[in-house]
Amino acid sequence: LNALLSATGTTVFTVMSALAVQHGSINLGQGFPDYEGPEDVVKAAADALLDNRNQYPPMTGLPELRQAVADANRRFYGLTIDPATEVVVTSGATEALTACLMAVLNPGDEVVLFEPLYDTYLPVIRMLGAVPKLVRLTPPKWDLPRDALAAAFGPKTKAVLLNTPLNPASKVFTAAELAFIADLLQRHDAYAVCDEVYEHLTFDGWKHIPLMTLPGMRGRCMRIGSAGKTFSLTGWKVGYITCDASLAPNVAKAHQLLTFTTPPNLQRAVAVGLNKDDSYFGSLSAELQAKRDRLAAGLEKLGFGVLEARGSYFITADFSPLGFSGDDVAFCRHITEAAKVTAIPVSAFYDNPADAPKHYARFAFCKNDAVLDEALARLTAWK
Amino acid sequence: LNALLSATGTTVFTVMSALAVQHGSINLGQGFPDYEGPEDVVKAAADALLDNRNQYPPMTGLPELRQAVADANRRFYGLTIDPATEVVVTSGATEALTACLMAVLNPGDEVVLFEPLYDTYLPVIRMLGAVPKLVRLTPPKWDLPRDALAAAFGPKTKAVLLNTPLNPASKVFTAAELAFIADLLQRHDAYAVCDEVYEHLTFDGWKHIPLMTLPGMRGRCMRIGSAGKTFSLTGWKVGYITCDASLAPNVAKAHQLLTFTTPPNLQRAVAVGLNKDDSYFGSLSAELQAKRDRLAAGLEKLGFGVLEARGSYFITADFSPLGFSGDDVAFCRHITEAAKVTAIPVSAFYDNPADAPKHYARFAFCKNDAVLDEALARLTAWK
Ligand SMILES: CSCCC(=O)C(=O)O
Ligand SMILES: CSCCC(=O)C(=O)O
Repeated sequence: LNALLSATGTTVFTVMSALAVQHGSINLGQGFPDYEGPEDVVKAAADALLDNRNQYPPMTGLPELRQAVADANRRFYGLTIDPATEVVVTSGATEALTACLMAVLNPGDEVVLFEPLYDTYLPVIRMLGAVPKLVRLTPPKWDLPRDALAAAFGPKTKAVLLNTPLNPASKVFTAAELAFIADLLQRHDAYAVCDEVYEHLTFDGWKHIPLMTLPGMRGRCMRIGSAGKTFSLTGWKVGYITCDASLAPNVAKAHQLLTFTTPPNLQRAVAVGLNKDDSYFGSLSAELQAKRDRLAAGLEKLGFGVLEARGSYFITADFSPLGFSGDDVAFCRHITEAAKVTAIPVSAFYDNPADAPKHYARFAFCKNDAVLDEALARLTAWK
Repeated sequence: LNALLSATGTTVFTVMSALAVQHGSINLGQGFPDYEGPEDVVKAAADALLDNRNQYPPMTGLPELRQAVADANRRFYGLTIDPATEVVVTSGATEALTACLMAVLNPGDEVVLFEPLYDTYLPVIRMLGAVPKLVRLTPPKWDLPRDALAAAFGPKTKAVLLNTPLNPASKVFTAAELAFIADLLQRHDAYAVCDEVYEHLTFDGWKHIPLMTLPGMRGRCMRIGSAGKTFSLTGWKVGYITCDASLAPNVAKAHQLLTFTTPPNLQRAVAVGLNKDDSYFGSLSAELQAKRDRLAAGLEKLGFGVLEARGSYFITADFSPLGFSGDDVAFCRHITEAAKVTAIPVSAFYDNPADAPKHYARFAFCKNDAVLDEALARLTAWK
């Protein structure tokens, strides 16, 4: 059997979700809302099933969705994107990530990544015969260590994989940080795979800046968006890649080998979603910000050291002030069993969990208020 | 950019479908029905969107679909499959193929395949660093050259990729042929990726036999089914892999890296489909057989040499009796432009089209009768 996969664990999200079910625990682990997406979008998907367009759509996506993606790029970021040649629709952002990496990497190429990182990145890079070069952001503010980053680039660097807003650390990369990265990309003639699935989920006035909008970056970036995250419909698995026409053919050919196409009814509904007016996107982040505040206040009251969360679905919390005598894996299992609340150990977002920070747990706040309150009540009772 | 993808063409199906649109041609190229799937299945998918289960389903698929896949395995083939540990749902059969290959292949491994073959197989195998060993079936009956097959196996053989019923040749492998393959697999301790997407589309009493049902094959086969093909809903992109519990974890981990999950509403509807009674599956093949006969009779009348088609959506037709002075690529382009009917050149199903048979075109017959009649009328007018 494939040695890399045999050595790869089942994702921590699945493991912890299964454990949550087993213990009747409130699942603040895996990042998915427990409420539904916008009614008109869901209804559009249902209606679209019933009017005879259930066969293969065009490989790179339905024209109406590619147009909506291009329009959203202009509207939110001022990017001019050709919907015919610069957008590829995928079956979720996970496929998009794998397709972008496949599109540019050759065996032996190096890829620069930032830890903590999402857990599919490294196995995909290794499966393609490429070599990850890891740079650790420095908690508790997840600062970018510029010297280490510059040192990670070299003659074999083919790409950087950048996730902003960042899961799990909820960092939103600043213009200055992005400029530093952009400069390195230009000097090393490298590409960027930009995992921007939380692009519309930022708080406190923090604005997501796509690396692609920086000078010189238009032709180097593959920007990944997620309908699941943008419309609170994580099961739909519709993603979209925006990239220069010079990159799109290879991205599309990777997609051709991975899934080929994506259900047309869901594509049509996502187009309806992306065309919604600004008030939708404003409420989405405002509502999530209120949930973040609710959970953060509760965790702080319990004694957790709550790190700043500028975007995404997640709070990172330092549990060491609580006096628990075990690492983050033990802590997350313990509260699942004893408090009936599940979180994700942050060390799972490191290549080598053994020497990762071991005192952080990630809590998802994309839940109904009553669920957040009940989780806090359970943690209070447990403590 | 990735050299393998840069060297890989856009799939012939997309190229010819685009050409068909450009010329207002009847598209008998890419294999998709121009009619819809069963109403109750489509309605189940629409209903399922509206009742609040649009978040991530379990990674290996919803329990109700895994159960339905296991039940179908028992009912159609007498296979006993554990739905909890031996089924993995994927975002279409293309993903399933890539996931199965990823699950077992290591760089340097050899994979035995039969030409003509579907065009995603070879790039995926090469992307994984594995080496294809090709065996050509012999037209016009697409006989299995047993000596050449035995010679293709060697100490590095890790797997065979077997497509039955076979696209484009519409061959249904016989029990004797499968026994010969099974024997080689056992002697070389190898696995089989079984692309059985046309399992329910067989004609004239030919029955599909999964390799997995042969003695000694239960633990070696990864059997791929397709809801798109089984329910005439090719856009839905729901596939399912049936394999031994010893193989399923690696298959699931590949799926985790490729798409992670598949839309729950479509999964629920596919479960409804698989649970339909035998009359559905009987009518499906009877109706397709009538379409095959309709197109075959018309093509014969026009002078084509029509090869026997025992399964799938496709007829292979020898156009050399028509006196066209060009190869199959030229022929398919020519009839698209001149007759406004599109077919697929069969040489596109060979690794090296240059030394492939060049006198066959593949016509899809999964179309409304009026469309088939109009295509034949256009070919008659052209001729
Ligand atoms: C695709 S499962 C994980 C969902 C997610 O993005 C997360 O929990 O980090
Ligand atoms: C996935 S596009 C091609 C559809 C098909 O199976 C075929 O036409 O052979």
